[in-house]
Amino acid sequence: MKTDPSKQSRDNFPYRMSIPTRWGDNDMLGHVNNVLFYRYFEAVVVRFQMQEAGVDWVTDRISPQAVETLCRFHRPLSFPETVEAGLKVERIGNSSVTFAIALFGEGHETPAATGHFIHVFVNSKTLKSQPIPAQARRAYEKFR
Amino acid sequence: MKTDPSKQSRDNFPYRMSIPTRWGDNDMLGHVNNVLFYRYFEAVVVRFQMQEAGVDWVTDRISPQAVETLCRFHRPLSFPETVEAGLKVERIGNSSVTFAIALFGEGHETPAATGHFIHVFVNSKTLKSQPIPAQARRAYEKFR
Amino acid sequence: MKTDPSKQSRDNFPYRMSIPTRWGDNDMLGHVNNVLFYRYFEAVVVRFQMQEAGVDWVTDRISPQAVETLCRFHRPLSFPETVEAGLKVERIGNSSVTFAIALFGEGHETPAATGHFIHVFVNSKTLKSQPIPAQARRAYEKFR
Amino acid sequence: MKTDPSKQSRDNFPYRMSIPTRWGDNDMLGHVNNVLFYRYFEAVVVRFQMQEAGVDWVTDRISPQAVETLCRFHRPLSFPETVEAGLKVERIGNSSVTFAIALFGEGHETPAATGHFIHVFVNSKTLKSQPIPAQARRAYEKFR
Repeated sequence: MKTDPSKQSRDNFPYRMSIPTRWGDNDMLGHVNNVLFYRYFEAVVVRFQMQEAGVDWVTDRISPQAVETLCRFHRPLSFPETVEAGLKVERIGNSSVTFAIALFGEGHETPAATGHFIHVFVNSKTLKSQPIPAQARRAYEKFR
Repeated sequence: MKTDPSKQSRDNFPYRMSIPTRWGDNDMLGHVNNVLFYRYFEAVVVRFQMQEAGVDWVTDRISPQAVETLCRFHRPLSFPETVEAGLKVERIGNSSVTFAIALFGEGHETPAATGHFIHVFVNSKTLKSQPIPAQARRAYEKFR
Repeated sequence: MKTDPSKQSRDNFPYRMSIPTRWGDNDMLGHVNNVLFYRYFEAVVVRFQMQEAGVDWVTDRISPQAVETLCRFHRPLSFPETVEAGLKVERIGNSSVTFAIALFGEGHETPAATGHFIHVFVNSKTLKSQPIPAQARRAYEKFR
Repeated sequence: MKTDPSKQSRDNFPYRMSIPTRWGDNDMLGHVNNVLFYRYFEAVVVRFQMQEAGVDWVTDRISPQAVETLCRFHRPLSFPETVEAGLKVERIGNSSVTFAIALFGEGHETPAATGHFIHVFVNSKTLKSQPIPAQARRAYEKFR
């Protein structure tokens, strides 16, 4: 039985990081603009890929590229709160990995937003998909 | 039979607008950053809602709020090209409307990205969902 | 006698471009966020450098790098207006060029903001300053 | 005798905050985009004004508005480093306050960038300039 993602807690996400909001993240309506939620998704995915999976986009010949992202908005976030982003590995394919992501506002047990981010490993020159490198695969299995 | 969205042409999207890319839209990898694709989605949805559906976020008591967005990345976009964004109404509910969106790069017949954007009309104070106002509904039916 | 920059007209700026604002450019206060004014400055400088001065940041061995920017805010700008950016070359040094920039809102004769942007040509590897290349210098003299 | 601002240390700036860079802050050239330096300036100014000077842009009848900002770029900053922003009050006028700002990269004693940010207090309705409120003035004197 699948849990409603909007009811998940921080404990469901083994990899987490703090993201201080910036004044300019808020839009005319006084809340963090929807587009910025993806900036926070990117922050946690990029840090995880660099620190845990050993990815270096500048030098690696085979590197991950986003093919699909999705976000469901459950509650607003607002500057100046600090957002906590959580990530877990949801699916490991041959070339692709799917991260489940949640963003938690200060003082909330359940997420303001949930979604996913799918990376496919490609050859940086040809853009052809490639098997997930061994070091990255080990990291994904650890955070499943 | 559903067409593969990545094979659709501009003609599949009755509402279109041009979006000039900005230097800062490109990221370290030399292409428009994934997050910015949602900035372009927002541009076409906001303009459509204001111009065609009569929405005014600042003064309206009932106004649309994003509840889900999704983007599939088929091909890179890059500054300095001008992107053409296309929108059609995919589904009209009681309170919600789903827009199908595609982004076309210069000189390409098929989209660099496709996705959707779901708006729910809410009471700006209580955030409770509300039926789609009549003027907006007429616009959605026209661009189905 | 120097004119008050806030009283200048579009005619004082021989190079101009249109910049459509984006919803997300506005901040919580309902106007284009101050930081975004520099995004518009960058837009006109980068386009001028690429189209008129022949600069290619990706391949050139000697390329311009910002060393100082300044903006004075005279009046707000707001989405959904289209901003007109004007540029003229104010000073040509041995390695550096200073652009005077103005941003005009729709229906206004005088600028919403004025400022400058100083580029220094450097060796992309060593970051040592270099004389302005001949093609670029010719363009700067033309737009003085 | 005035010190060269690019030679100042963190100690010259009594108010400081940490700003984690984000992947999308870097531009095509692999460094934090020039425009983003102003996003960091804004971060430290806004936090100082809210926490120390008691400013609330949403509810206050008299609130500060940027009239001039300037940045000199001494050295690049790059994701994923955490930037330390320093602020001191440089000049207190009748209606306006000038903040000197510096941005320090990780492991550097001298700033990557220095500049200023001038706020003028205005009536939020009429936009006419107003004397600095007493609470704010006390904070500015403290951080001179």
